[in-house]
Amino acid sequence: MMRAAPSQEEVRRDNLGTLLRHIHLRGPASRAALAEGMGLNRSTIMALTGDLTAAGVVREELPRGTGRPSLMVSPESTRVYVLAFDIGVDRLVAARVGLGGVILDRREAERPRDSFDPDALVGALAGFTRQLVRKAGRDAVCVGAGAAFSGTVRRADGTIRYGPDLGAKDVSLGDALSRRLALGLTVAIGNDANLGALAEHQRGVGVGCPDLIYLHGDVGVGGGIIVGGRLLEGADGYGGEVGHMVVNPSGRRCGCGSLGCLEAEVGEHALLERAGRGGAGRVGRDAVRAVVDAADRGDAAARDALHRTGEWLGLGVANLVNIFNPGMVIFGGTLRDIYPASAAQVRSRLATSTPAAPRERVRLRTAELGDDTTLVGAAELAFGEVLADPLQVLARLRTAVPDPSGTTA
Amino acid sequence: MMRAAPSQEEVRRDNLGTLLRHIHLRGPASRAALAEGMGLNRSTIMALTGDLTAAGVVREELPRGTGRPSLMVSPESTRVYVLAFDIGVDRLVAARVGLGGVILDRREAERPRDSFDPDALVGALAGFTRQLVRKAGRDAVCVGAGAAFSGTVRRADGTIRYGPDLGAKDVSLGDALSRRLALGLTVAIGNDANLGALAEHQRGVGVGCPDLIYLHGDVGVGGGIIVGGRLLEGADGYGGEVGHMVVNPSGRRCGCGSLGCLEAEVGEHALLERAGRGGAGRVGRDAVRAVVDAADRGDAAARDALHRTGEWLGLGVANLVNIFNPGMVIFGGTLRDIYPASAAQVRSRLATSTPAAPRERVRLRTAELGDDTTLVGAAELAFGEVLADPLQVLARLRTAVPDPSGTTA
Repeated sequence: MMRAAPSQEEVRRDNLGTLLRHIHLRGPASRAALAEGMGLNRSTIMALTGDLTAAGVVREELPRGTGRPSLMVSPESTRVYVLAFDIGVDRLVAARVGLGGVILDRREAERPRDSFDPDALVGALAGFTRQLVRKAGRDAVCVGAGAAFSGTVRRADGTIRYGPDLGAKDVSLGDALSRRLALGLTVAIGNDANLGALAEHQRGVGVGCPDLIYLHGDVGVGGGIIVGGRLLEGADGYGGEVGHMVVNPSGRRCGCGSLGCLEAEVGEHALLERAGRGGAGRVGRDAVRAVVDAADRGDAAARDALHRTGEWLGLGVANLVNIFNPGMVIFGGTLRDIYPASAAQVRSRLATSTPAAPRERVRLRTAELGDDTTLVGAAELAFGEVLADPLQVLARLRTAVPDPSGTTA
Repeated sequence: MMRAAPSQEEVRRDNLGTLLRHIHLRGPASRAALAEGMGLNRSTIMALTGDLTAAGVVREELPRGTGRPSLMVSPESTRVYVLAFDIGVDRLVAARVGLGGVILDRREAERPRDSFDPDALVGALAGFTRQLVRKAGRDAVCVGAGAAFSGTVRRADGTIRYGPDLGAKDVSLGDALSRRLALGLTVAIGNDANLGALAEHQRGVGVGCPDLIYLHGDVGVGGGIIVGGRLLEGADGYGGEVGHMVVNPSGRRCGCGSLGCLEAEVGEHALLERAGRGGAGRVGRDAVRAVVDAADRGDAAARDALHRTGEWLGLGVANLVNIFNPGMVIFGGTLRDIYPASAAQVRSRLATSTPAAPRERVRLRTAELGDDTTLVGAAELAFGEVLADPLQVLARLRTAVPDPSGTTA
């Protein structure tokens, strides 16, 4: 509480971070625009971009074919990258993501359900990583690694506390991954919906909206919440677990042991059962899409299942709108398909379950980054350290670049 | 997003505010302790305390009877004060609160239910204000005014959008109060539970807990939520309306028109009806206390009513713990009596309705500031401006001190 204003050295570091973050999130900008946007004079901007250019994270060049005198500052996207992993219930994605947010390369595999083998998981990601790193340029530097996981993650050490196919045993996935990759980097782990919220807030439909809720559907329903521009983490990093909000106390049994949790009423199992497709049939994203497609073709059972699911989704959204007064609610994962097919029910429930004030300006939207929302969030998590202190992180990494092909075999 | 690091002038203003806020919230401190706490050298601290002393907001003196060389810096509590109003469902409180948070003087009246007469309300508060201001010293300066209101308040202009005895008509209470008091000050209005959360966070049981939820019971249930040390306001300031979270979709009709809202299941009416005391009997805080007293004496109906109310309260708390992963949940207003009498039900529901991780470190507590929680919150709202920029606000007010006895008659 008593923190004094920052020192000159902190000011310089923060300005470097602010400038680099701007280039990273919004793309190339002229020195003049940066000076105006940051409220700094042009000589200060020139000193900052000079430092960043020397560190190899941005480049400055005259824009082609224009008479404009101001140098454009662009991110060195292929030279400065992170590794991003998305560990979903049904799939595994690994990507090399360059500064500026461009996905330079990616690998993807299906993931078997109903078993959780940390060794196999780490092994698969390490294999992907070797392929990705090998393709990077000789002068490229990996500045971070992040993973999105569909479960409850303790902020302090990245331990998985609870997951849909995992139950409630603690797994030190971040440590295991960091050791196995052996890139001299810690792999930061975050809850997939929390990272999805960050991604949509920074690069998706939620840009410019400081108060938003991201709902991510897969087997269950996860949530990530941005409050006043910052991710709601809670005391230990478990914040945003809206899937276990009870919306129907006499409802369906949830995997957590409780009755009528939002994810029990809105998750994949509930939808498939209501549509008469439970049991041994297809599961996952494709199965959910099949219900939506059937409803589009006029299948009454599918349509009814979506409408009933939409009622509960609407009740959950209404509760969250009352609690948070958000500017936007974003539907991602399977909810990207379910919401448009049940929007009337969701909106009707929202209109009747909450006083007017908190809902009158809320926008309901689907995730703009599509199937990559949580992957992009993992990349942003990985970029966090270098954006907070660019020069220090770059200096450390450039003096100790490991040889991944030798150590991760 | 692109905000640059602060200028020297902003640094000085922020340091003055930080120092004054510390003295205001934590009481007298030595220059040496301030220097260490703020990480500034002693000559910088001396310059800051000198400015604040010259402005008349703090005084510096040698501690009596000790050999300690460091001057103590204390708030000028009787010279610098705010007006705080608490507009509850059943009572009206006005107080003069000095810098440092000391309640210097107060007036209180009962408020009739089931009618909302803004003119009468403003008139009553203006009358109290005249009495309070008249008793202040000649050299005292009123630096702000704030009011806690048991309803939904729009942040932008302090308009009341929804209230228990008010329905959903818009009332510009802040404007009306500011005009009528004619102190040259804007009366800031906040939702009572939001301000209660701030008060308990800054001066009550929640000190040092950056993630907490305050639940305030009266006719309904209000909520105020602190996320990462900051009040959750939402897009328009309506955040924290947990009373309209639906916990029982086939439950009791709520005043908002919905079914089974937390406040419909946990509010005063539900408790009194369950205890067989609905209808024409006593209402309000005393009626709730009578149920708790009866249960203590062994009255089975009262005990059962409290236990059933505790079940729903526990379900609401469990939902909030899942969503926020708070370090603490604080029960205020009538819930200060209801929670201890139903703690077993609340805790049992919490244990079964949420996965272990988000609840394992949460503490359930009653409000430490007692019946004054929301009043103290209104005072802190009023102090906000002077703490953000002490010298500028003081300079403005000292050059234009109005004569309240002449203008508010």
